[in-house]
Amino acid sequence: MVFNLGKHSSSQFNQEMEAIRSDLLRMGGLVEQQVSDALESFLQADSALAQQVQQVEQEVDELEKHIDEECARVLALRQPAAIDLRTIIAVSKCVADLERMGDKAAKIAKLGIQLNEEGSLTTGQVEVRHIGERVKTMLHDALDAFARFDAHKAVAVAVADNDVDAEYHSAMRSLVTFMMEDPRSITRVLKLMSVFRALERIGDHSGNLCEQVVYLVSGQDVRHLSPADMQALLEQR
Amino acid sequence: MVFNLGKHSSSQFNQEMEAIRSDLLRMGGLVEQQVSDALESFLQADSALAQQVQQVEQEVDELEKHIDEECARVLALRQPAAIDLRTIIAVSKCVADLERMGDKAAKIAKLGIQLNEEGSLTTGQVEVRHIGERVKTMLHDALDAFARFDAHKAVAVAVADNDVDAEYHSAMRSLVTFMMEDPRSITRVLKLMSVFRALERIGDHSGNLCEQVVYLVSGQDVRHLSPADMQALLEQR
Repeated sequence: MVFNLGKHSSSQFNQEMEAIRSDLLRMGGLVEQQVSDALESFLQADSALAQQVQQVEQEVDELEKHIDEECARVLALRQPAAIDLRTIIAVSKCVADLERMGDKAAKIAKLGIQLNEEGSLTTGQVEVRHIGERVKTMLHDALDAFARFDAHKAVAVAVADNDVDAEYHSAMRSLVTFMMEDPRSITRVLKLMSVFRALERIGDHSGNLCEQVVYLVSGQDVRHLSPADMQALLEQR
Repeated sequence: MVFNLGKHSSSQFNQEMEAIRSDLLRMGGLVEQQVSDALESFLQADSALAQQVQQVEQEVDELEKHIDEECARVLALRQPAAIDLRTIIAVSKCVADLERMGDKAAKIAKLGIQLNEEGSLTTGQVEVRHIGERVKTMLHDALDAFARFDAHKAVAVAVADNDVDAEYHSAMRSLVTFMMEDPRSITRVLKLMSVFRALERIGDHSGNLCEQVVYLVSGQDVRHLSPADMQALLEQR
């Protein structure tokens, strides 16, 4: 279903679609770096790196606006259909998730700076590293699934999110115990809890990206399905 | 810019646009009720009402899918332009925010049930009521601004969000003090903090709805602007 597009404008259209896809991947790469730097700045108590993470946020916000503008322009002028239309819709959902991940990365960086100043905690570092690495992998794989139109890889990320959630809850329970044993640590432990919460949310948003990849590739809306149900749906195709 | 639409299909198109708008308002009304019931169930320790709130979540999720489907169908078949296209884009962003508000309402209800079982706290109830009422008003006003195409009302909601954020931080600080004075209350206070966080997020999402209303009415993307800058942009028009 391509409407009134001559050869010239059709190849222009393909270029525009490719630009939107590559802009999304660029935004994704930027957020991936932001998450990675946020984690390092937190674990290495590197306040300079943390400040850098916070500065990238504006760039991410601008990319979100730019990509949404491009999507609106293509919708208005090109009447995309089928997979092109689904790409535009999916990209428009994904930028919102990426922008929020950028927010969370900036938050982790900010909490890191605060905790450096207040005196670091002896607890939770291993778990931050561990969960942090897992959500970094989830985000990376989600972007990879988008780049390769790989719905199966996308579902695998959704499965990984279940594990991260379990580890997150376990880390939070340990922190509650720590607080009870040393009430003077409460303010700092609450900040550490916020770091875990931000990481867990980055995992959730990576899961959202993957739902959009499945939609984009298969046309199936798998939001609010369990990973097992997603898998089953894909295998029916 | 209406392409190849005869009188008949043009009036059908208007009906479809109207259906999308009214479905969004119906989803909004449902979430508004969910937030209101979640708040009451929490404050009145009404576990039956809390369970009801959790059950509505599925209905909200289904509406999100349905509305997105309708938006994709209109984009594919009708090539909407100008304000119609902006409506579709804005609605598609808004459903994601409404769905997350529904999640938060369900979370408040769930935490209420847990706190009922663990023994209620003597602190924070007044603040939950107060902040809860404010975010309910924000959500109501955001939906009203959408229904009336009222960008100025939308900006007023964004201003209100600043106040809610200040009250939220104040309530959280009091809870930290409470925890330090009575470490046995820690687990329950953490749950109360989650309730405040959920309310604050509902306020944020209401602010997001309003940014979409401004976009829909004016074509201006005001995300990541301060309320004052939004106001200035509207007055330039």
